[in-house]
Amino acid sequence: MAFDKFHDECGVVGVYNHPEAANLAYLALHALQHRGQESAGIVSSDGELLHKMGGMGLVVDVFPDEVLAKLPGRMAIGHNRYSTSGGSLAVNIQPFMVSYGLGQMALAHNGQLVNAGYIRDNLEAFGSIFQSKSDTEVIIHLIAQALDESFTTRVVHALRQVRGGYALVLMNEDTLVAVRDPWGLRPLVMGEVDGAVVFASETCALDLIAATFTREVAPGEMVVVNGERIDSSFPFPVESSYSCIFELLYFARPDSDIFGVNVNEVRNAFGRQLAREAPVVADLVVPVPDSGVPSAFGYSWESGIPLQPALVRNHYIGRTFIEPSQHIRNFGVRLKLNPVRRAIAGKRVVLIDDSIVRGTTSRKIVKMVRDAGAAEVHMRVSSPPTTNPCFYGVDTPTREELIASTNSPEQIRRHLGADSLAYLSHAGMLEAAAAAGIGFCTACFDGHYPVAPEMTRRVQLELFHP
Amino acid sequence: MAFDKFHDECGVVGVYNHPEAANLAYLALHALQHRGQESAGIVSSDGELLHKMGGMGLVVDVFPDEVLAKLPGRMAIGHNRYSTSGGSLAVNIQPFMVSYGLGQMALAHNGQLVNAGYIRDNLEAFGSIFQSKSDTEVIIHLIAQALDESFTTRVVHALRQVRGGYALVLMNEDTLVAVRDPWGLRPLVMGEVDGAVVFASETCALDLIAATFTREVAPGEMVVVNGERIDSSFPFPVESSYSCIFELLYFARPDSDIFGVNVNEVRNAFGRQLAREAPVVADLVVPVPDSGVPSAFGYSWESGIPLQPALVRNHYIGRTFIEPSQHIRNFGVRLKLNPVRRAIAGKRVVLIDDSIVRGTTSRKIVKMVRDAGAAEVHMRVSSPPTTNPCFYGVDTPTREELIASTNSPEQIRRHLGADSLAYLSHAGMLEAAAAAGIGFCTACFDGHYPVAPEMTRRVQLELFHP
Amino acid sequence: MAFDKFHDECGVVGVYNHPEAANLAYLALHALQHRGQESAGIVSSDGELLHKMGGMGLVVDVFPDEVLAKLPGRMAIGHNRYSTSGGSLAVNIQPFMVSYGLGQMALAHNGQLVNAGYIRDNLEAFGSIFQSKSDTEVIIHLIAQALDESFTTRVVHALRQVRGGYALVLMNEDTLVAVRDPWGLRPLVMGEVDGAVVFASETCALDLIAATFTREVAPGEMVVVNGERIDSSFPFPVESSYSCIFELLYFARPDSDIFGVNVNEVRNAFGRQLAREAPVVADLVVPVPDSGVPSAFGYSWESGIPLQPALVRNHYIGRTFIEPSQHIRNFGVRLKLNPVRRAIAGKRVVLIDDSIVRGTTSRKIVKMVRDAGAAEVHMRVSSPPTTNPCFYGVDTPTREELIASTNSPEQIRRHLGADSLAYLSHAGMLEAAAAAGIGFCTACFDGHYPVAPEMTRRVQLELFHP
Amino acid sequence: MAFDKFHDECGVVGVYNHPEAANLAYLALHALQHRGQESAGIVSSDGELLHKMGGMGLVVDVFPDEVLAKLPGRMAIGHNRYSTSGGSLAVNIQPFMVSYGLGQMALAHNGQLVNAGYIRDNLEAFGSIFQSKSDTEVIIHLIAQALDESFTTRVVHALRQVRGGYALVLMNEDTLVAVRDPWGLRPLVMGEVDGAVVFASETCALDLIAATFTREVAPGEMVVVNGERIDSSFPFPVESSYSCIFELLYFARPDSDIFGVNVNEVRNAFGRQLAREAPVVADLVVPVPDSGVPSAFGYSWESGIPLQPALVRNHYIGRTFIEPSQHIRNFGVRLKLNPVRRAIAGKRVVLIDDSIVRGTTSRKIVKMVRDAGAAEVHMRVSSPPTTNPCFYGVDTPTREELIASTNSPEQIRRHLGADSLAYLSHAGMLEAAAAAGIGFCTACFDGHYPVAPEMTRRVQLELFHP
Repeated sequence: MAFDKFHDECGVVGVYNHPEAANLAYLALHALQHRGQESAGIVSSDGELLHKMGGMGLVVDVFPDEVLAKLPGRMAIGHNRYSTSGGSLAVNIQPFMVSYGLGQMALAHNGQLVNAGYIRDNLEAFGSIFQSKSDTEVIIHLIAQALDESFTTRVVHALRQVRGGYALVLMNEDTLVAVRDPWGLRPLVMGEVDGAVVFASETCALDLIAATFTREVAPGEMVVVNGERIDSSFPFPVESSYSCIFELLYFARPDSDIFGVNVNEVRNAFGRQLAREAPVVADLVVPVPDSGVPSAFGYSWESGIPLQPALVRNHYIGRTFIEPSQHIRNFGVRLKLNPVRRAIAGKRVVLIDDSIVRGTTSRKIVKMVRDAGAAEVHMRVSSPPTTNPCFYGVDTPTREELIASTNSPEQIRRHLGADSLAYLSHAGMLEAAAAAGIGFCTACFDGHYPVAPEMTRRVQLELFHP
Repeated sequence: MAFDKFHDECGVVGVYNHPEAANLAYLALHALQHRGQESAGIVSSDGELLHKMGGMGLVVDVFPDEVLAKLPGRMAIGHNRYSTSGGSLAVNIQPFMVSYGLGQMALAHNGQLVNAGYIRDNLEAFGSIFQSKSDTEVIIHLIAQALDESFTTRVVHALRQVRGGYALVLMNEDTLVAVRDPWGLRPLVMGEVDGAVVFASETCALDLIAATFTREVAPGEMVVVNGERIDSSFPFPVESSYSCIFELLYFARPDSDIFGVNVNEVRNAFGRQLAREAPVVADLVVPVPDSGVPSAFGYSWESGIPLQPALVRNHYIGRTFIEPSQHIRNFGVRLKLNPVRRAIAGKRVVLIDDSIVRGTTSRKIVKMVRDAGAAEVHMRVSSPPTTNPCFYGVDTPTREELIASTNSPEQIRRHLGADSLAYLSHAGMLEAAAAAGIGFCTACFDGHYPVAPEMTRRVQLELFHP
Repeated sequence: MAFDKFHDECGVVGVYNHPEAANLAYLALHALQHRGQESAGIVSSDGELLHKMGGMGLVVDVFPDEVLAKLPGRMAIGHNRYSTSGGSLAVNIQPFMVSYGLGQMALAHNGQLVNAGYIRDNLEAFGSIFQSKSDTEVIIHLIAQALDESFTTRVVHALRQVRGGYALVLMNEDTLVAVRDPWGLRPLVMGEVDGAVVFASETCALDLIAATFTREVAPGEMVVVNGERIDSSFPFPVESSYSCIFELLYFARPDSDIFGVNVNEVRNAFGRQLAREAPVVADLVVPVPDSGVPSAFGYSWESGIPLQPALVRNHYIGRTFIEPSQHIRNFGVRLKLNPVRRAIAGKRVVLIDDSIVRGTTSRKIVKMVRDAGAAEVHMRVSSPPTTNPCFYGVDTPTREELIASTNSPEQIRRHLGADSLAYLSHAGMLEAAAAAGIGFCTACFDGHYPVAPEMTRRVQLELFHP
Repeated sequence: MAFDKFHDECGVVGVYNHPEAANLAYLALHALQHRGQESAGIVSSDGELLHKMGGMGLVVDVFPDEVLAKLPGRMAIGHNRYSTSGGSLAVNIQPFMVSYGLGQMALAHNGQLVNAGYIRDNLEAFGSIFQSKSDTEVIIHLIAQALDESFTTRVVHALRQVRGGYALVLMNEDTLVAVRDPWGLRPLVMGEVDGAVVFASETCALDLIAATFTREVAPGEMVVVNGERIDSSFPFPVESSYSCIFELLYFARPDSDIFGVNVNEVRNAFGRQLAREAPVVADLVVPVPDSGVPSAFGYSWESGIPLQPALVRNHYIGRTFIEPSQHIRNFGVRLKLNPVRRAIAGKRVVLIDDSIVRGTTSRKIVKMVRDAGAAEVHMRVSSPPTTNPCFYGVDTPTREELIASTNSPEQIRRHLGADSLAYLSHAGMLEAAAAAGIGFCTACFDGHYPVAPEMTRRVQLELFHP
């Protein structure tokens, strides 16, 4: 998949009871930057008032030095938003912060609801207004309209009405709440540092702020932190676990532990399994950076074929890079990757990538490796063919754009120009991830959606908010 | 008053049926820049969808060249927001644009409601959320919850519940609505250019886009423009006219016609009346730029004392100017004004300003003129003492900060260090403005509030949204 | 002339022996901002090393808060550069700071040399390199190559070789030098504050930093400040005084005193003289802001015709303002000026401007005033026809672009569409400025260049450095 | 060495005879971004005039989209400058572009001269001025003063006077010159694309613009390209080759071929040799990213110990990242690296880095790995102890700051807290690089400077230009 940025989603963090809560949130967002580069925001509470800062861009650019000064208090939540093509508005920057019947509240959301359109239609019909195109605004309305006495009861009330993927951190003036959807689709972990409680999408955020990992928030669990108390409850009917396998395959950072496993280790296992399922006689295993690296190691170890990082990544590519001219040949992939010719020349190369989405980039990479002198180029993908879009928070293209939805592996092989192509089997993928001991959502590979998507409405919404 | 930026408010514009609607709105906002420098925004409609652009800062900085390209359609509304000290958030940038039960709508508001707090409390109690601290959001909720079949009926429904000052331009996908509060507190004019209908806070905006002035929107009038129709109605019980006298005294541009009179002409009349009421033997009339200029001319003509613009303004002061050091003497006023010493030296000077708010700046100016060698400095103010805050849209300081609320003119004279001080009388002010043929709100001078303010709630809101 | 920015030049400042030298330079540059808006720079000396800061744009934008911290020392010089169309390079930002045989030196220059091209050719022929297109670099080379033992002797050596207009402030590690060309073309004044010596282009800079005016630096005088000593010498053969009359007519701020007179007062006199020479039966005198204001007052007083500032200037025009569309009618002048219609309608108007350069803007203004309902529009210009370019530091267009170089007043009147047009006579201009008691360069009006310009080379240079 | 940015230098590029010369230079600079991130610049020639653009920051930020439009012509040179701490001035942005006796010229320089101070003193004594603190300005002066008839003869004249490291691209209006110092210290390669001749510091720049590698510019060779001719000459007495071994060890990109070898391959060889010289019983080889990766692979292959990329790099670190608070523990290394705990825990780890400069970062990394649960941490360095500063263009700290200059390996091991520490031997390093078939400068490891440095003057210069 390499640089096709189709699978971004979001990162969230929450900090309770730390004198530098906003600073910790800031650092955690920095560690979660890979989950979203479009915008970043933090809301803190000083016990009486909430304070918000945020902006478009990377965490390091959005927040000036004196973050703490403008975001006082011992409690904070933060959010990184994924990158979309155009139409980005400041109004979409999370966490959302509003005032409502009980005071103020703020909310940061990773995931996507399948019935947001339906609820939104209803809310609008009864007089609600919406300022963003975010699902998250639906949740806020439901909380505000729950009319229960307490913030946390309202949250339960609201979330009982929504279906889909969510890892949420919410707060009002004095309480921090972390919730994970009953299917466990999106990850959320819990940690501790200096007596403060911390929630984050991945453990790499805990590492950066030197917090120790306590445990995962369980599917369907709501953790409420207030004063000395940390209360756990399961207010929603918990279904079978359907954690997102794509987090393990591609999205999470390899140094994170989520869903009970280390991401790097599982990716190694994907690679080993792939080597067993789809061996090839070759001289060199070359990972497509960066996401293909761990499974490439697994493939190399299992196959005995030596690995070389023979595609060098240019670290200075920013999102603002514009190809300077149409007259010059397309530089797309070369701006980001360059082969080590002497390592590749004359070799039979096994390229390992984590997935193929549209095939455009993979095709260029195969050509680049062949142009560098490879005798043969064999493509091995450490996941099954991606045939279906995600409706729970991973920003995939439409079914039509997914090359594997309408092409056989052999057709794809020809399109890529590879000498051979093999995907990891569905069963092999699950076996390699079995250490997690949980069930996975594999809808993007098999179309089995654990929560039925609202197809029609989704299309309407897209028309409505282009 | 000079540079004490206490009296800013907002500017609004609406354009219907012009191929470059957004560009006209942009130019009109530029002409209305004096009404608000904090932020600017435009929403256009292409007939099916609304599109928004906006940002913090001046109109010229907020909108890039290709405004039209990103704001398509033949209809647009725009808003300039006043400058407040700190706490400025992008979420407050108007026009507000939301989706609701009937589709999309946008709203730009100049003014302030007195019962916004009460309504907001009620709305929140029944489940509404608020993202900004603006009164305007209250109006939007009321429209969304009106649940009538048509947009314009909803607007009527909503506005029947609010009290206070407002000049509004609203639109949905295909209809432009302009409304003025029943007291006529805030100005709103109507014009025409190339077959397009235009609304704006002042006629100077019409001038810039070469539109001809049609008429004022009347107090309590709602004008609905759709297709070929321009419908006028008066859906609210119209009270006596209480147009804001401060618009004439200070706020509007002298080249504008509002409330049926030319602003420059009325200011001349204020000055003439002031000369009759408070003559002084002197050699030179010197206006405090820029707002004191027209009344200074009136004073000069009536008194026969020659006028010289002997205080020169530095046009390059930006809002970002920081005095570089505490060790250097306070440069505050000198950064903005410098006296022409040779014009002033040895002269008995009459300084004309439009108002005195806190007295801080006036004191520095009196000292500056005296230091430049004036034999005597007589201060003449072309309005009565400002003793009360405004609750209808002019951003005044609290009563405590208004020097005239707790000090007699003689005490103020001593504070300023002037040889004499005289204000225009209340009766004289009204007589000078009599040509308008309407009633005025003079609450800031006499505390007679035509619409009872909600004092308590206002304070709470300020605590809540610092 | 209004907004045709053809006559900008530069502003300079020097401060010796003040604990906040750089801050004073900063404030003085701010007061001199009208002399150049393209770039600004300051060099300070801490006694051993020179330090430089500078950038493109206005003084308030170029220098961050902590100016003093990065520009230590008790000595500083500063420079504002004029605005040119495009091709602006950071390499041209003055003061220039270099190291040379005796250590470091810095130089800020207002003016233009007529033999810079000749000297430059010679210097290059003998191996010198030039990094900018500035005349100033020539002076620096001459100083560096003088090879005398002392900095000040080298300055004399260098300046003896150059001809043309210059007001210079120079410094090395411990000495501040101010020099004015022998013809006295460009202004330079001297002041004192808190024991510190200050030099500046105009006295308005002294006012802002609360410095008292000591005297002007005389034509051909070099003032050297070092330790307790202030040494004056006249190292060049002083010719007759040829101070730039255009400084009085247009360029200097009205609150400044230069060439021994107050600028505002002389402009009043120009207006009075113009009224005597070119009377007209009219109802209203209207100045073209801002430069036409003082002479309009003079005209009004002498003629008895009342004055009204009936053209209102929009203060928010920045240099970045782009007219948004070619489809909308040309908004050029209306973006900057708007007439007060009710003040003008039906009146016979006398428009007063300080000069007419290309006539483009004047024509639009005449039309604007007529469109506002003026019964008659009479144009009166408070200087003679501008027929020749300047070669001593005022950035004029070429002869071909000057409307008066090829058109008679009657032809210009027809071009402007005015009912009558009259210029101040050459003799009248000199008589009005006679209070200065010095001679003036009036080359732009009569082509009598006191220092012969190098026409050919100038053209070459322009080709060379577009 | 990891993130201690002590060894940056510069990158250069030259393009002759391409319709999009500036665009190719732009892309090549992008590929060479790792050689310098402080500033970037390009000068093009349209055959008659040179044009320059440049600024502080990364290539992608410095150049807007329309590079080609502002940099016309078929010839261009470009430069990336290294990152220094503070004191960065726009005046140092290369290429330098000047006018001189024969017209215009521009120059981009990678390297450092040892006698620049001496020459500069002489030049200044005879009247030259210097605007930057760059050695490069010395070369320009020498060319300008050579006074020969032709540009290229002057270049020879000038370069015969300088000693030290340089890879230069120069041009005047119609000729492109590339020169490498007689010791071959700095790399420079030559390529071809679409009939255009290209020079660049490394072949990775050729790859990006799809140019084919022609050959290296030889030590002491001057290549002159003009019209159809490509002339090669050796105008300086060529000494033995002393190419910079540090380019191979650390500086160049692994996908580049310089000095006749592929960088990645040589680094593999360094690692293999290190494994032979300093074996250790361990479970896991972990490279310190990114520079330690290729030698870590070599070590792993030779030792048979499996490699894992168990230190994950955060790609979103910008140079602007500020640690938010002193109250929070030092996050220095954690912001950039995070260990994969499960890969490390309980393992005996061999950390491979390319060098140790001050030891600060290495110490933090050792601690990080140990904290992640490593049973043992063995440090292996793929170069000898760095004991001496470089005077030929690599920006090293002073001798005092180099930990190996005053500490034995055992002392360093204790400082790092490693269980063992071993460096590659000097002989082993040379043997591993022997495939290049050339001699190397190894002064930073042994103090044998092939060109005697000017120690005294260097210190003075630093005092002079802090």
